[in-house]
Formats: sequence, C-alpha cells, structure tokens
Amino acid sequence: MNTLGHLFKLTTFGESHGAAIGGVVDGCPSQLKLDFDFIEKELLRRKTAQSSTSSQRQEPDKIEWLSGLLDGVTLGTPIAFIVRNVDAKSADYEALKDIYRPSHADFTYEQKYGIRDWRGGGRASARTTLPIVVAGAIAKQLLDEKGIRISAGVTCIGDAEQARKEGDTVGGIVECRIVGTPAGLGEPVFGKFSAELAHAMFSLPAVKGFEIGDGFALAKMRGSEANDTFINMDARLWDAGLQDARSGTEDLRICTATNHSGGIQGGITNGNDVVFRVAFKPIPSISKPQQTVNRAGEACTIAIEGRHDVCALPRAVVLVEALAAMVTLDLVMMAKQLSF
Amino acid sequence: MNTLGHLFKLTTFGESHGAAIGGVVDGCPSQLKLDFDFIEKELLRRKTAQSSTSSQRQEPDKIEWLSGLLDGVTLGTPIAFIVRNVDAKSADYEALKDIYRPSHADFTYEQKYGIRDWRGGGRASARTTLPIVVAGAIAKQLLDEKGIRISAGVTCIGDAEQARKEGDTVGGIVECRIVGTPAGLGEPVFGKFSAELAHAMFSLPAVKGFEIGDGFALAKMRGSEANDTFINMDARLWDAGLQDARSGTEDLRICTATNHSGGIQGGITNGNDVVFRVAFKPIPSISKPQQTVNRAGEACTIAIEGRHDVCALPRAVVLVEALAAMVTLDLVMMAKQLSF
Amino acid sequence: MNTLGHLFKLTTFGESHGAAIGGVVDGCPSQLKLDFDFIEKELLRRKTAQSSTSSQRQEPDKIEWLSGLLDGVTLGTPIAFIVRNVDAKSADYEALKDIYRPSHADFTYEQKYGIRDWRGGGRASARTTLPIVVAGAIAKQLLDEKGIRISAGVTCIGDAEQARKEGDTVGGIVECRIVGTPAGLGEPVFGKFSAELAHAMFSLPAVKGFEIGDGFALAKMRGSEANDTFINMDARLWDAGLQDARSGTEDLRICTATNHSGGIQGGITNGNDVVFRVAFKPIPSISKPQQTVNRAGEACTIAIEGRHDVCALPRAVVLVEALAAMVTLDLVMMAKQLSF
Amino acid sequence: MNTLGHLFKLTTFGESHGAAIGGVVDGCPSQLKLDFDFIEKELLRRKTAQSSTSSQRQEPDKIEWLSGLLDGVTLGTPIAFIVRNVDAKSADYEALKDIYRPSHADFTYEQKYGIRDWRGGGRASARTTLPIVVAGAIAKQLLDEKGIRISAGVTCIGDAEQARKEGDTVGGIVECRIVGTPAGLGEPVFGKFSAELAHAMFSLPAVKGFEIGDGFALAKMRGSEANDTFINMDARLWDAGLQDARSGTEDLRICTATNHSGGIQGGITNGNDVVFRVAFKPIPSISKPQQTVNRAGEACTIAIEGRHDVCALPRAVVLVEALAAMVTLDLVMMAKQLSF
Repeated sequence: MNTLGHLFKLTTFGESHGAAIGGVVDGCPSQLKLDFDFIEKELLRRKTAQSSTSSQRQEPDKIEWLSGLLDGVTLGTPIAFIVRNVDAKSADYEALKDIYRPSHADFTYEQKYGIRDWRGGGRASARTTLPIVVAGAIAKQLLDEKGIRISAGVTCIGDAEQARKEGDTVGGIVECRIVGTPAGLGEPVFGKFSAELAHAMFSLPAVKGFEIGDGFALAKMRGSEANDTFINMDARLWDAGLQDARSGTEDLRICTATNHSGGIQGGITNGNDVVFRVAFKPIPSISKPQQTVNRAGEACTIAIEGRHDVCALPRAVVLVEALAAMVTLDLVMMAKQLSF
Repeated sequence: MNTLGHLFKLTTFGESHGAAIGGVVDGCPSQLKLDFDFIEKELLRRKTAQSSTSSQRQEPDKIEWLSGLLDGVTLGTPIAFIVRNVDAKSADYEALKDIYRPSHADFTYEQKYGIRDWRGGGRASARTTLPIVVAGAIAKQLLDEKGIRISAGVTCIGDAEQARKEGDTVGGIVECRIVGTPAGLGEPVFGKFSAELAHAMFSLPAVKGFEIGDGFALAKMRGSEANDTFINMDARLWDAGLQDARSGTEDLRICTATNHSGGIQGGITNGNDVVFRVAFKPIPSISKPQQTVNRAGEACTIAIEGRHDVCALPRAVVLVEALAAMVTLDLVMMAKQLSF
Repeated sequence: MNTLGHLFKLTTFGESHGAAIGGVVDGCPSQLKLDFDFIEKELLRRKTAQSSTSSQRQEPDKIEWLSGLLDGVTLGTPIAFIVRNVDAKSADYEALKDIYRPSHADFTYEQKYGIRDWRGGGRASARTTLPIVVAGAIAKQLLDEKGIRISAGVTCIGDAEQARKEGDTVGGIVECRIVGTPAGLGEPVFGKFSAELAHAMFSLPAVKGFEIGDGFALAKMRGSEANDTFINMDARLWDAGLQDARSGTEDLRICTATNHSGGIQGGITNGNDVVFRVAFKPIPSISKPQQTVNRAGEACTIAIEGRHDVCALPRAVVLVEALAAMVTLDLVMMAKQLSF
Repeated sequence: MNTLGHLFKLTTFGESHGAAIGGVVDGCPSQLKLDFDFIEKELLRRKTAQSSTSSQRQEPDKIEWLSGLLDGVTLGTPIAFIVRNVDAKSADYEALKDIYRPSHADFTYEQKYGIRDWRGGGRASARTTLPIVVAGAIAKQLLDEKGIRISAGVTCIGDAEQARKEGDTVGGIVECRIVGTPAGLGEPVFGKFSAELAHAMFSLPAVKGFEIGDGFALAKMRGSEANDTFINMDARLWDAGLQDARSGTEDLRICTATNHSGGIQGGITNGNDVVFRVAFKPIPSISKPQQTVNRAGEACTIAIEGRHDVCALPRAVVLVEALAAMVTLDLVMMAKQLSF
C-alpha cells in the first residue's frame, strides 16, 4: 500500500528522521532524457523555508539516483532515488516520545503497528512526500511531450501572519487545472479519472476534502444549470486554442460550452480542462498549549515548539500538481491498450 | 478496472439494457450464512419508484445466485450473482442513438471506446450500481459481527417537487457515519482510510465532491480550532458507549473529545466515528429542452423523456453505505495480517 | 485470486454442481467482432466424451453472453458469460461427502475453508476450466490479427486403453508452440514471459511440471551446447518465413540459429518460437479400490465410480493453448506502453 | 512488474554496474527484531568467489538500511535497503557494447526498450538477485516463528572443473523442501501454491524448468501409482514429527502416506512437505569462442573473458530458498483473512 499507479507506478519509503527517504518509479518509458534541472526546480518549490509561512528546516534535498538510468537516459527499468536526512534533530522530539499530539498520527500509528517512530512524525511526516515531487516531475516531462500541462495555485488561505503570532496555524484550498487532456481518459466504474485523482490527493497529509468541477456547489444546482451543453466550436476559435489536445479532428470540433463537470463526464475526460480543488486542514503542530494524554492515558499539556510551518499550502501546490501528473500519465498509458 | 478492493473484492459487469448486470465477490470469508432477506431489503432501498422523487421503472431486481454458496453458506470461493434486465425498453433510446446528451457519458464513452451502448446509458447507467448494493450487504453482515455499523442519510437536497414540474432535476449531499471502527484501520501513504473511501465514492455516477470530518470547512479554521484533543474517558461514560469497538482496553480508554478529523488521523482510524459527506450533481436527464450536438457535430435540441428520477439522492444513500461497508471490511481484512 | 492477467484479465467463478460456471473478461479492446463459431469450436475441443479416453458426461456447454457486447461487437466493458450446469447429478457424490479422495482437493479445501462443496469436486473440478477456453478463444482472435498463432499437442501419454480396463488412469505431457511473437515481450525480473506462462499453466488442475525450451535437459548441458547463437538470416529465407512477426526490419534480420532457449532470453521473447511443455499427473479418480480416511479419521476403502476420464490430456491441449494466448496477449498489451 | 507478492511484497531495483542495487519490502509485520547476523550469513551463501566453481568478483555486499526500522525493529512501514556497486569495472564490458552475447539478454532488452545498459548485464545480471536474499531472510525469520523451515540443495550438476578447463560452463538442478507448512495454504485457481512457487522461481536468471512433487515423472505414472493415500497417523509417530505444523488436532492426525504430490493437492498444501525442483541452464558466458552478430547485423566471434562463474548452482540454492520463503509467507498472510 506504499505504491501508487497501475502502469506508471511510484513506491515510496522512508521516515522523517531515518537514514533516507526515497522512491522507486516503475513503468517509466525508456529513452527519456531526464530533465534534472526541472526536477530540482520542482523540489525547490516544495522546499521548506521558501517563504515567510514556512518552517526553518534547512534541507539540502540532494537526490542520489540509484538505478534505471544510463547517462541520464531512462532504461525502462525501475528508477530508484533517495534523499538523505542530514538535518534530523531527533532530540527535539524526545519529549514527545510518550505523548499523543492532537490530530497527529502518533496515536493511530501506535494503535495500528504497536510501535511508532516518534522522531518528527516518522512515516507520517510531510517530509515523506518528497518522492512524490520527483515522480511528478518525471510525469510532467512526459505529459509535456503530449501537450498536457498541469498547474495549481492556492485559492483560499487563512491569515497566516496573524496565526503565527498567536502560535497557531491555518489551512486552505488548492485548485488545480489539467490542460490539454484528450477526451477518453479514465476507466469507467472503479477507475474513473475523478476517483483516481481523489484517491491520489487524499494520500497527502492534511487533506480533508476534494471536489471536481463545481463540486459541492453542484449539489445545490438544478440539472438545467449544472449540465454542460455540447457545441461544435467555430474553426477559428478552435484553431486559436489547444486544438491538438482536444478530441476533435479537422472536421469535428466538439467541446462543452461550459465546464461545470470539470472536464469529466461518466468518469472519463471530455477534452475540456480538468479542474479540481483540494481542502487542507491547518497543520496540527501549534505552539499554543493544548490538552492531550500520554501513553499511560494521563492528561497532560503540550506546546509544540521547533521548526514547523504556519501553513502547508505553499508547499502543497507542487504536491497536488505532481500527483495530478502521475494520475494523468498513468491513465494515458492505460488508454493506449485500447488501440490494439 | 471494474474491480474494487484488495482482499474483499467486487468485480461488476453489465449494461443497462444488456442481458443482465451482475457481480463477482472474491475474498468473502467462508462459512458465512448469507442473510438473503437483508440483501433483498437493501436492494429495495435502492429500487426505483420507491418515492415521489424517483422514476417509474418497475424492475423486479431478482437475484440469481450462481456460485460460491452451498445451502446458502459461503464456500470461500467467488460468489457470482446476476439480475436480468427484464424491463428494458431499448426503443425508447433509439432517438438518442446519435445525439450526445449534455453531461452524460455518451460523448466520453464514444471517444474512449469508439463505440457505445446507446440504450439507456449502457455501462454508465445508474442501474449498474446494483451489484454494489449486494456486495455491500454482504460486507455489512460481516462487519455487524464485529460491532461495526454504517448508516447514511440525505443532508441537503434541492426542491425536488418544484423541479419535477419544471422538467428539471436536483442534486444533494449524502452524509455517512461508520460507528464502531477499531483504531488502526487504513494503510498509511497510498492506502489511507480516507483515500480508499474517496476513491470508492467517486465510483458512483454523479459524484462530484467528497469530504471527511469537517472537510472543506477545515480549510478556514485555525489549528487550535481544528485539532481534536485526546482524552481519557471516564469509565462510566465509556461503558455506556460502544466500548468494544473503541481502541481502549479495560485500563486505557483514550479517545478524542471532538471529531473534526472524522475519525481519521494520518489516514488511519482513531476509534471515533468515521464521518464523511458525498456531493451529487443533479441527474443530467432533464425533460427541459437543451442544446447539444449530434455525432456529425450538428447542433440540435434534445428533451429527454422517459423514466428518470428527479433526484438520485434517495437511491444514493444505500449505495454510499454499501461502498463504505466494502471499504471498511477490506481494510479490516488488510489489518489482520499485522498480528502475525 | 480468481483473476488472471494484468491488462487482459479473466475472473472465473463457479463450482462443478452449482447453478453455473462463468467468467468475466475485463480489458478486452473494444470494436472486436467476436467470432462465436470459433469460440464454440474451441469449447468442443475441451468437451468431454470427445474421444475414447474421455468420460461420458454430456454437457451442452451453451454459453449465455451477459454483458460487454452490442450486436456481437465488444464495447470495451467487461464481457461476462455463463454456462449452466444442467447435467449435474449431485447424488452420485453423496457417498463421497465425508471421504477424502486420494490426491483430490477434498482434504485441502476443507482444511482451508472449513467447508467444501462435495458435489463433483466443487471449485476444484476440471469443469471450472471452461471459462479459460472462452477467454483464450477471444485472446487467440486478437493475436491472430497480429500474426501470432498458438498450437499445442500431446507429446507423451500412457497406455490409456489398457489403464481403462484396469480401472486406472494415465498422465502425459502437452507441448505448446507460440509462433509469430515479436521480440521484446515479457517484463524483466518478476514478470518474465516464462514466469507468466508457468504461473498460468500451474493454474490448471493436475499440472505438476513446466519447462521452457530444452527445459530440464539444459541442466545437463554445457554452455557451449545450450547457447543459441545469433545470425543474420539470409533475406530469401527470411522472406519465406514469418517475417512480419520477427523482430527484424528490412535491413536487419537477426534471429537465433537454434532454439534451446524456447524463444525467451532474460525473460523476454527474442522473436523465435516460444516452446514449452506441461506435465500432467494422472487423473486421481480411479475405479480401482484405494485406501483412504473419512472426515472422522477412520480408514476406509474407496472405488470411484461414475463418469471420469481415463486421461485428461486430450482436453488439456485447448486449455494450454488458451492460457498461452491469454498470457501472450496480456504481455503484448503491457509492451504497448513503452512506445510512449 | 518489479514487484513480487500480494501482502508481503518485494520491489527490487538496480543494474549490475549502476550506483546501487536494492529493494523495498512492503508489508512486513511490525515489531520484528531483525536478525542482521542471519541476513549477512544468507548473503554470504550467495556471494561470489565462495567456491572453486564461482567467479572472482570481490563484492563487500554491505547493506545500508534506509527505512522501516527503529533500533533494528520493524515499524510496519516499507523497509528499504541498498548495496553499492563498488567493484564495478565497466571498462571490461566496453568491447561488448555493440555485440549480442548468445543466450544473454542483450538482444532482447534492446528489442524491448530500444536501449540497454551494456555494462555487465545491467538489470539482467545475476547480481540483481541480491535483494531477493535479503527479503528471503526476513521471510525465513518470520516463518521460523511458525515452525516453517526451508532448505534447498543441488541434486544434479555437470562436471564443473572439467568445463572450466575447456572455457565452458555447466547447469544443474536445485531441489527445495518446505517443512512445517500447515494444510490450507495457497489459493485455488489462479493463486495455487504451486503456481506462485513456479512464478517466483522463473524470476531467477537461467531457470528453464520447474516441477513439484514427482513432477514430470508423474506424466508416465498410472493414477494408482501417483495417488497419495490418506492415513490417520499413529499418535506416537505423529508426536515424534512436526505435529504443530501438521493440520491435525489432538484427535485427528490425517496425513498422506506417500508424497508424490509434493505436499500440494488442488493447489493447496496438505500439511506434508512441499518439495520442488528447479532446472538451471548453464551460464551463457563462456570463454570458448562463439559466433554471433553485432548491432549492425554483422557476423563476429566472441570469447567472453572476465569474472564469471562456471556454474550458478552453488549461488542459486539460497535464492531458491529465499523465494520459497517469500511465497510461503505471503500465502500464510493471505490465509489469515479467512478466520474472520
């Protein structure tokens, strides 16, 4: 269950304060010259301390590539990579060893496994999302060749600077748009494009909501408002747009006039932009004192000091994009078998 | 991609107006005496024409059990079952053969497969969710033995009767609660309880949003508001509750005082109720005239007559419950391997 | 675990004397006009009573197609089919209800599941291989379009007629040849063409051995004898052969001069014929009296009467071919993703 | 397709002369104190240069543990490990860059991927089996707690020393025995214990045959010779044996008097020893000159110098055991879900 994808697959491993975190990408097409600069840039987007809302941990995030490459070109074999945990101050967490931090995974991991790595969140740490950025960057490079582009941004966020002063944190919403998807991606029933996206997004820490197109707002609409009518787009407008990525041919340029559906109907892409939103709860590590219990069940007070973000949203943007890229690429590859 | 689950698996098949729809449940424990009455009752909850907001199609929904049973007791082998499509008036759909109904799957299926079953929605029809109810009923029966119970209800719905008069439809929201889950269910990273639920719910037609716990509202909260503090519950209160299902032992009764997290932290259940909501868009089949195009790309007007619900929500309740039961059972079975 | 394949998948269900046996083919490309005559012919090849070495059960083996087809053309959705068990004389088996037949699956199923369908072998019956023939016939039809052909035959068999007189049975060996495979099929490491074939063949009842190319004989050879040297075939010879299916282009016609490897090197096809052999043990149902024990552990004597083959080999040929076709098609589909 | 297993899973990565080879074990139960000494001993059994029949490469094979452990105890999260390729003399292989070595994977990998790592066999090198030994050692440790033990040995081998003098190589057969398996392991139909074993064994380089129990010899037997009669073992004999691992209880001690079936009937273990044999072809790297072609299709002569074993069999023993352990553990874990 540490693997995502059907044909383009990422397996991740690592705890926050273990020796390293890393991933194995299995199923990447061969003969791709990896764009290492792009991967580094994507990692920088995720890096802590990038802004005033993020924490102070200085991680070099230096990737060691272990396999699957010859002179930077993919061999078709598994691409393994790791990043060492060099700045891991386990001692900071010693005091938390026997205490269950509210809304963290301490208690649930211990209930599940009978043991937990108490150093910095262990496997549940946001640091373990790093391999997702790497795999996502590879997926983006492949999608780019097909004219499929993915971009996300923060559309809703609390007052981070005020929260910081109060020792508190804020949540927010990331909106993502996939442009250039051909019609016909996604598997009906249990592999819908929307279902695969939702599944991937809920793999990120702190995600509590997902909606596609107009999402929850659709629940309050009438069918006549929510439906996206099909139109045969004027050739000149079509040519001005991303016509390659659309499903139309020279003679047929069908698309939807509106996009309440977020580009997905019956679980399958219709050629319009795929648009979705992901809701993140506030980071649970706050320096404000909180009530909780320790392993013995005794009540105690906790004030979480140390390096923590006020808001995960700035980092989350690249993670949302990365997972969207992996899901899209995976479903593009699934769709290829149809043209037998 | 027509299969859901890892250990308790359902494969479904069938089109709305084909010979039959059905499913294969693989991985059901042996020696379970199936409660056929309960399964029938669950199917009745899904049945059309059950209320004033639903359509008029009279389906007997008579299950034929094909395998996996000896005198009504499970053998541990695949349980296959079908329901014949007896009331299938394909002719009703003849006029729609070459027209893409707005916000239906007609266009996307045709783009994906180069062919589609135009009779009644084919594989994309809501009728094909019937096997989910059957598998869900079996899962519920097994969960019931463990003290885990699932119930859903409609929490938001448009003005159905007014919409009907206007030839329109409405959407809504279903809220579901899983009571009695032990702490420790769900796999971290890519198999989180929340991710598995989200994936399953998006398998239902018309689902456009999913949130767990306080969901999207959490995006606007502070960490200090959103966090669920742990408490050691008083023994008397504990005993009055569902103590068997909680994670505590005689001496340790840890739970959360609030439940903003919806029973899931770090992707794993904490013993509190799992609470989630699913947003359904309005049914796209409306009798109001709509603009669209036909296969040749020519603009045309469509008014969808025939038997259609004004609102899918009354039917959706049992579907949401069924999928929640399947996911929960699957993750209970996954968790068993840990106690090696 | 009742599913075979990664992209072209067959899920089977059914017990020998239950209501029906059947299968669901998921992943079949759309727009294929199924050759029903061919499927019927393949089923006839498997049918009992086809020769003097086979048993007398008269099964009509009439397929009911339940889904995935429109006017006989595949929709890309799951193709479900069943065959009813019309000639099921359960009473014949009543006497065997509490007795473990030697080398049958009675004891092991009961140990596994705590229950077993004692009527005619239940899920372990050879009758349950019927869906494999159907799925294999579909796979053959698709492979045929690519110039890939599969044929098997019996290469070793005991003296069946003498064994029949003595109330005994015989085993044998089936050899199979896949002609026209392009080079490059099969996944390295855990998805080798040979490994996938071996796995599939051991899914058949009574299979106890599998070898590819010169197989066990290679264990006694020197490297210099066992190696297949590469040659650049003369253009005229090449043209006379199945040049389309070979890996060469107009200018490059590399193949192996010998075929000790059975067409597979490093787990991947080299363009030469894939050749393998499958060893079947004798059918364990013999009318000669045997010692065994009943469920209470008491010693008893058993003489298995009723309709049973003297030798499974004549039936096994089409099963070996069917599984070989399914594996080959599945790996052809897996290979498509590489040409991203 | 670089992953083996359903619940206890190993993903491997790495090329012979890349930065490192390694693996990720996902699904290992938590709270196991790893026996690192045992793992080292198992790696030594595989190590090259261990005997006169093996090659001269001096690899330290030092494992770096990257994740999944806290103070040497498993956390339940993925256990990743790598071994650096320190003694990788790529230059030795420069001459082979454009030549297809007979019966190696050079040609097939290049046909599949359009690129290959020509340095030392790349992904097809026997060196990439190292992670299997590590995962197998972990599986053995877990099985040992259940009284299940696995041991293999070479039962047939050519005259290695004579072959070495002649610049040639030899093949051989490894026989393996799994003692202490409870009855009831293995899934019927497509997950038979025998099928899973066969699949795993064919994942090893150079494997060309697999048989279980009497294997190919069964093809020439009569049913009356091949059948294993059940007996109720005398209590004293039973007590002297591995009674815990057998399927009997105090009152019921059913086992088979003979073991032609190799411990598996209907694909499921019967409690007797599981016995199987694996045929290995001779190593294809011989120093004797051979005819072959280069990438341009031109005929050339090749004499493979460098460090190569005369026979892979001594190394293969621990690999066969390791895979047998992984398969057995995986099926033990699969069987747990039945006792819901």
